[in-house]
Amino acid sequence: MIRRIDSFSNDTVKRIRSLRDKKARRAEGRFLAEGLRIIAEARDSGLLPDALVYAPPLHPLAREIVHQALDHGTDVIETTPDILAKMSGKDNPQMVLAVYPAPATDLARLNRSAAPLWIVAQALRDPGNIGTILRTGDAVAAGGLILIDDHADPFSVEAVRASMGAIFTQTIATARWDEFVAWLRAGPGQLVGTSLRTDTDYLDATYDQPCFLLVGNESQGLPPEYEAECDLTVKMPMLGRADSLNAAAATAVMAFHIRAAWRHRG
Amino acid sequence: MIRRIDSFSNDTVKRIRSLRDKKARRAEGRFLAEGLRIIAEARDSGLLPDALVYAPPLHPLAREIVHQALDHGTDVIETTPDILAKMSGKDNPQMVLAVYPAPATDLARLNRSAAPLWIVAQALRDPGNIGTILRTGDAVAAGGLILIDDHADPFSVEAVRASMGAIFTQTIATARWDEFVAWLRAGPGQLVGTSLRTDTDYLDATYDQPCFLLVGNESQGLPPEYEAECDLTVKMPMLGRADSLNAAAATAVMAFHIRAAWRHRG
Repeated sequence: MIRRIDSFSNDTVKRIRSLRDKKARRAEGRFLAEGLRIIAEARDSGLLPDALVYAPPLHPLAREIVHQALDHGTDVIETTPDILAKMSGKDNPQMVLAVYPAPATDLARLNRSAAPLWIVAQALRDPGNIGTILRTGDAVAAGGLILIDDHADPFSVEAVRASMGAIFTQTIATARWDEFVAWLRAGPGQLVGTSLRTDTDYLDATYDQPCFLLVGNESQGLPPEYEAECDLTVKMPMLGRADSLNAAAATAVMAFHIRAAWRHRG
Repeated sequence: MIRRIDSFSNDTVKRIRSLRDKKARRAEGRFLAEGLRIIAEARDSGLLPDALVYAPPLHPLAREIVHQALDHGTDVIETTPDILAKMSGKDNPQMVLAVYPAPATDLARLNRSAAPLWIVAQALRDPGNIGTILRTGDAVAAGGLILIDDHADPFSVEAVRASMGAIFTQTIATARWDEFVAWLRAGPGQLVGTSLRTDTDYLDATYDQPCFLLVGNESQGLPPEYEAECDLTVKMPMLGRADSLNAAAATAVMAFHIRAAWRHRG
């Protein structure tokens, strides 16, 4: 049954709104996704939310998902645009938002043979970059994203939005560097980093499977000891004045190139 | 001479702060850049600001730029972290910010033979994407960025920050689509768009010089009539569930691939 909520002080409104904060997400083990496109992407991946909130009128696709969610046992709530705006913290909120259980993120869950390419990102600070990298991971059919050291929350509203639904299709793991290295070296895998301190052009290198593409922090790049652990470091030529790319842009260039190299090798 | 300002209500403080708004930027013909790295990038490109504001202590590189700015006739202002925070609208402001004259953005300024690759972006909404694309443009030594139709302001603080200084090295032009097409067809140039409605893989296409890489809006992609105008449309294979990449990530993949194709062709 659909519940109708018309009060700003309703406990459910407050609880959902609280998921904008990392602490509440961690305590509840849930996260917030806004917008029909992302919620439809979750549904297409077989995931229905714990709670779904909308303000009428309902888009036909949203109506379809509401019915599926009701069958699934989702807490479906109809409310006003103003209350939705309060929950989403935006003046022009999406007309639908949903709460999902956050998956576990331990390394042990990863099956490295499930995909030829994995993305590993070190100390990313920008949730938008994390979401964009997840979206790129989906596009290249990466197995998932491994987040190393302290990083922005991949389940933040901003990261979820930038992922355009890839938060539901990409496996996410988090680990300290030494944990990751121990896990990596317990099985097959080529660790590939980009560096300014190598002469190997990224176009001339050979990429093995499974390939773990290691991306550095936005402002510092990879620490030297992380580079030293790589099986292969490659250089992306920088033809301009600056010596760097946006972390998510660099990841996309490398991931598409590695895929392309495999296709051309046959 | 360095001026010292200790009052929040100082007119210069208010004027600089107003540059966070697009209207004021347009009225003044100036824009704001925050952070030493970007201001140093401008200096390295031969540009010193009209005004420069800092809170002590000064980083040695900032001190060097302050001296050059004083010689140049820049209005150099020393102030407190609190007042700097007010100007920049952030709790943890960069310790230096600067005001630059906004360059003219008419198409007629572009010299298409100055570079083999140009980026053309249609109706981009996200200033972060514009800045990231400028940064990518710098990395591939593009001639500049042509912004088509209604778009976010490339001189917004957010775009300038994401450009990491490329706002000073990339030429920027703005134009309506019909103006752009008229200009493009008055000289040599291959217009290349990415599309889901073509069978040509981006890896198999031939890219001519000068190449104008056309990027579509974040949520809609390219309108069909824009695609129809392209001399070449190519498909980037999407191996996952979603059928799209972030606009700035897609631009980076295409721009690096075009450069790579030219290198391999010799």
